[in-house]
Amino acid sequence: MRAPLHDRLALDELGGDRFRGAPEPGHRHVFGGLVVAQALAAACRTVGVDQHVHSLHATFVRTGRFDEPLDHHVERTRDGVSFATRRVVVRQPSADPVLVLTASFHGDEDGDDYQPPVELTGLPRPEDLPPGRYDGDVVDCRDVPPAGGPPHERHMWFRVRGDLGDDPLVHVLALAYASDNGPTRAAREPQAHLLDRASRQSLSLDHAVWFLRPTRADRWLLSTLRPVSTGRSRGLVHGTVHTADGVLVAAVTQEALQRLGPADDQAR
Amino acid sequence: MRAPLHDRLALDELGGDRFRGAPEPGHRHVFGGLVVAQALAAACRTVGVDQHVHSLHATFVRTGRFDEPLDHHVERTRDGVSFATRRVVVRQPSADPVLVLTASFHGDEDGDDYQPPVELTGLPRPEDLPPGRYDGDVVDCRDVPPAGGPPHERHMWFRVRGDLGDDPLVHVLALAYASDNGPTRAAREPQAHLLDRASRQSLSLDHAVWFLRPTRADRWLLSTLRPVSTGRSRGLVHGTVHTADGVLVAAVTQEALQRLGPADDQAR
Repeated sequence: MRAPLHDRLALDELGGDRFRGAPEPGHRHVFGGLVVAQALAAACRTVGVDQHVHSLHATFVRTGRFDEPLDHHVERTRDGVSFATRRVVVRQPSADPVLVLTASFHGDEDGDDYQPPVELTGLPRPEDLPPGRYDGDVVDCRDVPPAGGPPHERHMWFRVRGDLGDDPLVHVLALAYASDNGPTRAAREPQAHLLDRASRQSLSLDHAVWFLRPTRADRWLLSTLRPVSTGRSRGLVHGTVHTADGVLVAAVTQEALQRLGPADDQAR
Repeated sequence: MRAPLHDRLALDELGGDRFRGAPEPGHRHVFGGLVVAQALAAACRTVGVDQHVHSLHATFVRTGRFDEPLDHHVERTRDGVSFATRRVVVRQPSADPVLVLTASFHGDEDGDDYQPPVELTGLPRPEDLPPGRYDGDVVDCRDVPPAGGPPHERHMWFRVRGDLGDDPLVHVLALAYASDNGPTRAAREPQAHLLDRASRQSLSLDHAVWFLRPTRADRWLLSTLRPVSTGRSRGLVHGTVHTADGVLVAAVTQEALQRLGPADDQAR
């Protein structure tokens, strides 16, 4: 099956390092992961094929509308000897800007490999779990029931639906997309009354991803999210993504707005 | 004693949201923490007094020269209802740009307070430790000898020298400055041969700081740094900053370039 994600990430080239993507159908707001992944895809269209994205830092400036296109304008900040830098501004006609993003690219290089040891054998397998909170057309998500571990730490298995093909870049973009599933909920974990209440404001403020090792995003991956701090209506979350074999493939940080009160597009 | 940091962060206003700072004397390269703190100071000059910076995301694009001024150009990305966003580009005549930074600002807001529990009573006190690797004119730094804890985790006490006064913003800028002391070393911890070798390339690639709770940076603070991953000549580090009483005041992430070979200004 062709992955539904392919269509979500398709961009029209408008010239002058400008690219246009479509918002996701069926949502009240544009999903943050979509905006981030499209903006990153746009940046990737302006670097050489031997330059691979290793990090992105995004700031959500406004809530995107689902009934307007997403226009991505890439600035070629620098092409260095080993690294390249791109900045992207994402605009909609009625929301300018929606997002600003900085991406860094690096040619292949050798170096010692290290990751902290992890033990995943005690976790339930995704095949044995029901669809989770973030399960949808594009990503298959299974929440792992909490069982010990650091305070408020939560695990979720996920994989992008369909066959993403063999282009490593598509899997990176898929990780960027899927990595916005979970952090706002994780930021609420220390605040039970916000978890239980339908009427709340919960919005991503920033989002950063480090792509540490290549992987396939259409195979099962484990997201681990941990709240770092909550206060002043903001929550900061650290996350990691491992393969089922325990290889660390990405690290994620996100700060989210968490308020009591009805959802409000002008909350920011 | 007036804090030496005050002079480092002094900026001349050039008009049009442009500000000029001086590089730090006596260094081969400009210290990354200085560029970040000056750029943040410039951004803060363009927001209302009731808007407080809560995060910065910076990308080091080039190594700054110590013999040229640092010009900070602020873009007013958005002034929202509760949040404001600023992007800054830092330039030098022979290095354009040196750094790009995004800062987010938030008015005061209430909300539940949570931080993971910490236990600092077992650590040696800074008064009992000798000056550490990053000790200098501006910041007093004391390395805590490793003693258990997660793999390669390291602690360092630090405080900005002199009296920073009572303006909370100055303490935030001081944290931004001091937070660049340590991450590149922490990224090398899993690679002993890079620690022992004088001839290596070790450069910050990005730097992000979340300012979680107010504090004084001229009192002792504890930096805890932990390598998240090393590979492909890059190392990612997570950090936290606590008061001596265990209050979490900031979180830090940094990715660093780590290569064998002589230091090279064109390494990026």
